[in-house]
Amino acid sequence: MTKSADAFEKSLSAHAAIVEARLATLLDASIRPAELARPAQLIEAMHYGALNGGKRLRPYLVMQATQLFAGNEEAALQVGCALECLHSYSLVHDDLPAMDDDDLRRGQPTVHKKYDDATAILAGDGLLTYAFDIIASPETPLPDAAKVALVLELSRAAGIGGMAGGQMLDLAAEKQQPDERGIVLLQAMKTGALLRFACEAGAIIAGRPAEDRDRLRRFGEIIGRAFQVADDLLDITSDAATLGKATGKDAAKGKATLVGLKGTDWARSELDRLVSEANALLAPYGAEAEPLKEAAHFIAYRKK
Amino acid sequence: MTKSADAFEKSLSAHAAIVEARLATLLDASIRPAELARPAQLIEAMHYGALNGGKRLRPYLVMQATQLFAGNEEAALQVGCALECLHSYSLVHDDLPAMDDDDLRRGQPTVHKKYDDATAILAGDGLLTYAFDIIASPETPLPDAAKVALVLELSRAAGIGGMAGGQMLDLAAEKQQPDERGIVLLQAMKTGALLRFACEAGAIIAGRPAEDRDRLRRFGEIIGRAFQVADDLLDITSDAATLGKATGKDAAKGKATLVGLKGTDWARSELDRLVSEANALLAPYGAEAEPLKEAAHFIAYRKK
Repeated sequence: MTKSADAFEKSLSAHAAIVEARLATLLDASIRPAELARPAQLIEAMHYGALNGGKRLRPYLVMQATQLFAGNEEAALQVGCALECLHSYSLVHDDLPAMDDDDLRRGQPTVHKKYDDATAILAGDGLLTYAFDIIASPETPLPDAAKVALVLELSRAAGIGGMAGGQMLDLAAEKQQPDERGIVLLQAMKTGALLRFACEAGAIIAGRPAEDRDRLRRFGEIIGRAFQVADDLLDITSDAATLGKATGKDAAKGKATLVGLKGTDWARSELDRLVSEANALLAPYGAEAEPLKEAAHFIAYRKK
Repeated sequence: MTKSADAFEKSLSAHAAIVEARLATLLDASIRPAELARPAQLIEAMHYGALNGGKRLRPYLVMQATQLFAGNEEAALQVGCALECLHSYSLVHDDLPAMDDDDLRRGQPTVHKKYDDATAILAGDGLLTYAFDIIASPETPLPDAAKVALVLELSRAAGIGGMAGGQMLDLAAEKQQPDERGIVLLQAMKTGALLRFACEAGAIIAGRPAEDRDRLRRFGEIIGRAFQVADDLLDITSDAATLGKATGKDAAKGKATLVGLKGTDWARSELDRLVSEANALLAPYGAEAEPLKEAAHFIAYRKK
């Protein structure tokens, strides 16, 4: 591991710890007014689903994209936590027996295994709903215009034209394989949309004009594609011990991936191409953009 | 049926038709940009789950509460549709086998029977997410401050301290019966919170000060309680043919209700008391409040 990569992973971990602490505080405060009856098991399941380790890559991107424009750090942390609630909801629902039917996530029982299906459905619903509560909250120090833009972009990134729609297409893809263009669109929706939002959110939080929002949005789209190519490559080339989860899952399910269609050599050169493209987009920002470039590098070349 | 009650039901139906038409338009436009892959089955399931008849009582309350303060009618219709998406999501998820396990809703197969569990989970997720998209949308003509207030109140009404938390407590109540206070809190969360939001939303849309927001909020809470008492009473006293759904369900499930605990005489006098209290709250608004008073009367004394 290069020195720079090592420093990046330390920075990522340090930010993850800050995000986890804030997420725990936010989830504890999620019942207002306090005299309401507490659905204790639901709150516990939401904690369990949201606070299970994880790299916290999406909040990291929100925070670094905000810092690029010297935006409000506290707002970036809050919006990062909102995004992580939303990401966590998607994992909880995707793991359900009716969906991907996974018993383990990061080596621990998934929410529906630890509790039951009803609790997992409601915990996901609660996390999704809470994401919008956090953004709109008076405790998130942002002008109303920025909050409205964040709610709009997040709901679109998460909704039918984004993550939820992508998951539906992904379930359908197990029965009828999409072509190359279909795979690219499906992945842009299922995993790309939230990464795109994470980057664009920084420009929104910092109140930047449309040009910067657009640039960060495109940067997010490109690292979203890199994320998916890297994921597919790891599924083929890594082993379960390194990856911390089963490998060869795509092939076993007969799921078409770009890497499966075009090969691992293509994948490695595609990652190089995407990283260059991502870096070029950030060129106008000079050295300030270094942390985001390192994030792009990490996403493309991570070993797990 | 009195003349006035007949006129009220005509007004409710007329508004419901307007809401259904707008909901259909909004759901058709829910994929942006249009060149994205369309998860056709998901969009179809969302239509199916949201456009299945229904009284559209919540949007009606939003529209009438807005009109009380001469607020923007177009905004009220949009917010009413957002609220109906959210209400529909809760029905789709509550009907799932892991939750209340219902095969029929209004005489039609529920979403998971018509499609499958995965599609129903995602259709619910999509409807919930889309509610926030509609509120934040540039097509909803409201100042940003009003949109932020609506997102905050709706996410709290729908979340762990509201509907989702109430559903969790309700599932737990089948195993361990709550006491009277527990039942009141559970119902205020599960069904009351969205009705409260519907009424308060009118004051927010019209940009009214805290005093009016508070008054409408309390009005919403009271008609929420009346709604639940009337529901429990109908479950005991009505027959399936009139109600359009099975009766005696609460008793069959061993579910504790206030009416079960305190009797039908108590329920009838409680409804009178709640209607008086609701009317008294609206007294300062004079004749302008007549439609909301009629709504309270309808909610308390409806036959189905």
